[in-house]
Amino acid sequence: MQVLAKSKPRVVIVGAGFGGLEAAKKLCGKDVQVTVIDWTNHHLFQPLLYQVATAALSPADIAAPVRAVLSECRNMDVMLAEVQSVDVDAKTVKTGDLQVSYDYLILATGSRHSYFGHPEWEPLAPGLKSLEDAIEIRRRILMAFEYAEKITDEVARRAAMTFVIVGGGPTGVEMAGAIAEIARYTLAKDFRHIDPSQARVILIEGEPRVLAAFPEDLSAKALKQLIDLGVEVRTGIHAANLTDAGLQAGDEFIACRVKVWAAGNEASFVGKSLGVERDGAGRVIVNDDLTIPGHPEVQVIGDLANFSHQTGKPLPGVSPVAMQQGRHAARNVLAMIGNHKPQRFHYFDKGRMATIGRNKAVADLRVVHLSGLPAWLAWLFVHIMFLVGFRNRLAVLFQWGWVYLTFNAGARLITRNFQAEHRPPA
Amino acid sequence: MQVLAKSKPRVVIVGAGFGGLEAAKKLCGKDVQVTVIDWTNHHLFQPLLYQVATAALSPADIAAPVRAVLSECRNMDVMLAEVQSVDVDAKTVKTGDLQVSYDYLILATGSRHSYFGHPEWEPLAPGLKSLEDAIEIRRRILMAFEYAEKITDEVARRAAMTFVIVGGGPTGVEMAGAIAEIARYTLAKDFRHIDPSQARVILIEGEPRVLAAFPEDLSAKALKQLIDLGVEVRTGIHAANLTDAGLQAGDEFIACRVKVWAAGNEASFVGKSLGVERDGAGRVIVNDDLTIPGHPEVQVIGDLANFSHQTGKPLPGVSPVAMQQGRHAARNVLAMIGNHKPQRFHYFDKGRMATIGRNKAVADLRVVHLSGLPAWLAWLFVHIMFLVGFRNRLAVLFQWGWVYLTFNAGARLITRNFQAEHRPPA
Repeated sequence: MQVLAKSKPRVVIVGAGFGGLEAAKKLCGKDVQVTVIDWTNHHLFQPLLYQVATAALSPADIAAPVRAVLSECRNMDVMLAEVQSVDVDAKTVKTGDLQVSYDYLILATGSRHSYFGHPEWEPLAPGLKSLEDAIEIRRRILMAFEYAEKITDEVARRAAMTFVIVGGGPTGVEMAGAIAEIARYTLAKDFRHIDPSQARVILIEGEPRVLAAFPEDLSAKALKQLIDLGVEVRTGIHAANLTDAGLQAGDEFIACRVKVWAAGNEASFVGKSLGVERDGAGRVIVNDDLTIPGHPEVQVIGDLANFSHQTGKPLPGVSPVAMQQGRHAARNVLAMIGNHKPQRFHYFDKGRMATIGRNKAVADLRVVHLSGLPAWLAWLFVHIMFLVGFRNRLAVLFQWGWVYLTFNAGARLITRNFQAEHRPPA
Repeated sequence: MQVLAKSKPRVVIVGAGFGGLEAAKKLCGKDVQVTVIDWTNHHLFQPLLYQVATAALSPADIAAPVRAVLSECRNMDVMLAEVQSVDVDAKTVKTGDLQVSYDYLILATGSRHSYFGHPEWEPLAPGLKSLEDAIEIRRRILMAFEYAEKITDEVARRAAMTFVIVGGGPTGVEMAGAIAEIARYTLAKDFRHIDPSQARVILIEGEPRVLAAFPEDLSAKALKQLIDLGVEVRTGIHAANLTDAGLQAGDEFIACRVKVWAAGNEASFVGKSLGVERDGAGRVIVNDDLTIPGHPEVQVIGDLANFSHQTGKPLPGVSPVAMQQGRHAARNVLAMIGNHKPQRFHYFDKGRMATIGRNKAVADLRVVHLSGLPAWLAWLFVHIMFLVGFRNRLAVLFQWGWVYLTFNAGARLITRNFQAEHRPPA
């Protein structure tokens, strides 16, 4: 696409995650021409991705087409394309076959999981960032039970019914709790040769405690709730030597078929092309106004940014940071167009929460620490409120109500790749 | 899995489609040991598959885990496996690595689309039988609009916005109507460089009229409703020479990016191993009691069976036939166990219906022919009633209500294969 020269300033937003979408909404209807570029066609509500991976929700429940979200914004283009690099001198972003030029750029391409220098582990232990990841993990979990039901070899069966989650942050804790719950409740009556409630769910965390970013009392409460669900928690231990057969956890080799990676992030490679300083995780070190050194027309936000001006440490890679930065970056663009200087960003931290299972959660709301049912209700409320789109909210409420009442996760589908579709034997 | 010898007669049902599932339900709790084998983990409500392909419904809305459907039947095993062949002499079915022996077999492995001797057309024009098919077609339709939005070449853009459906039976008519509707209503406001309502939807049918199995007056009404939606209908014409660029339809080459195949079926290859006579479409020619010659313990039902004893012609490959045959086959099994002879099958034909779009449908209810809104309401009612599972019914009603009120199909997701997941350029 050739973006024609227009009199209005051209703003390009790369990435329609929490940060990019908030920036776009803030610029909706303003006197700028905006192009939003994303490599998928949907905004993804990542905090609920683990529920797709564990069959409680359908992909469409937590994803909204970017075009639909922004369809009323007549000053906006949406482009489905994968940005490979930014040329800050030519003021263009490059996708596979097209170049898009900008007057102002907001870069919000986020992060992927990081395997600590072992990219070969990724197919063995998928992480949880995209719908495709979630569908693949769901397939592996459900297939493990199917396999266990069919085989008679006790050792192989036990390995098939052992699930290891590497990483005890919010995603790891949520995955561990959710797998334990579907094994104990949802699948309990479905099999004849195995007892799904005998499944082992093992959570491995390198730090001395789970939810290391939370206050210590909440870590302890989360640990207790995980143990109540039957999750085996191993802290202070690193995973190593991943193979199809299992993985090494400290001194022990755990035979397991399904491994899920929730242990670390690495910023999107697009940041590299900016030519400015990055941290060890690949994040772009931004100025206190979110711009990059030497190029005030370029702002970097969300998981791709290392913003350390407030606490001396980088802000965490969570959606509230990305959303606040998105809105701030949009305001900065409007300020710069009006010949004002971009403003210093300040993160307003409302706390954090993680859910473990039915009526089980922890919430650090700054003024108060909650756990158990109150935390879980707070978690429900916040996640429903922030879900994009009225339809998604209603659909998710409906699914949750159903699962809550019946213990029956509806989206227990094993789907394959189209290419792997069934063919008669040659 | 080794199926241990039990005192109860062992019944194996292969295929958990409409026929197999009805047979299983009929045997639930009876004094037989039943194993249901399917190569997916879900029963699929195929009549609504086109709504997944056109983004109105999510996969989980029209699929129910087979295990969940049968979980209360303590005399039943469910096995996720792909049956390759039947050994009628040894009374076993063979999957990849396992053999399962039976006293009575109900074979209901259905059909796939047939490309009239051109299997190389399948990747170019997917048919619509499985969830994977539907997700792939959805991806292609949505990607075509994304591509058209990006490019400037007018010829390529026009080809991207031309959708050809090959086959004017119920599936083809439903697909054509649904694509025309999402282009005209759902996507209308989402793009800036193209007008989705200008998309061409072309339906090609080899017979002189669409819905050739319906009475002539309803074919004519369906044609009118398709034309009202802007679908171009070409009858008496065969598709040929499919390529990425398009296809030949009679004298004309139609440049089109997306092609959908709804032109013919071919019975599952499993029937071949029975060693009995089959028809040109690979269907097993069954006795008037659904058994096969020489093996009364083997019954073949649904799309895999050619049952011509009632009208002189094979019964159509529709769900009511499969369901009635499934129940009949189960009754036959129980009769044979009680040393009675299997009974002759009689199909009770309640008519047929096809939907074209919002308020648009035709229904041949034998005593009365309906079209337009009354037919559409009848279609809605029947499809909701027969959807498996209370949750699915509510979820589909919710989605349909939403789409009806807002014209906004919620499941507009483009998902990729896990393997094709994004990686940084090397």
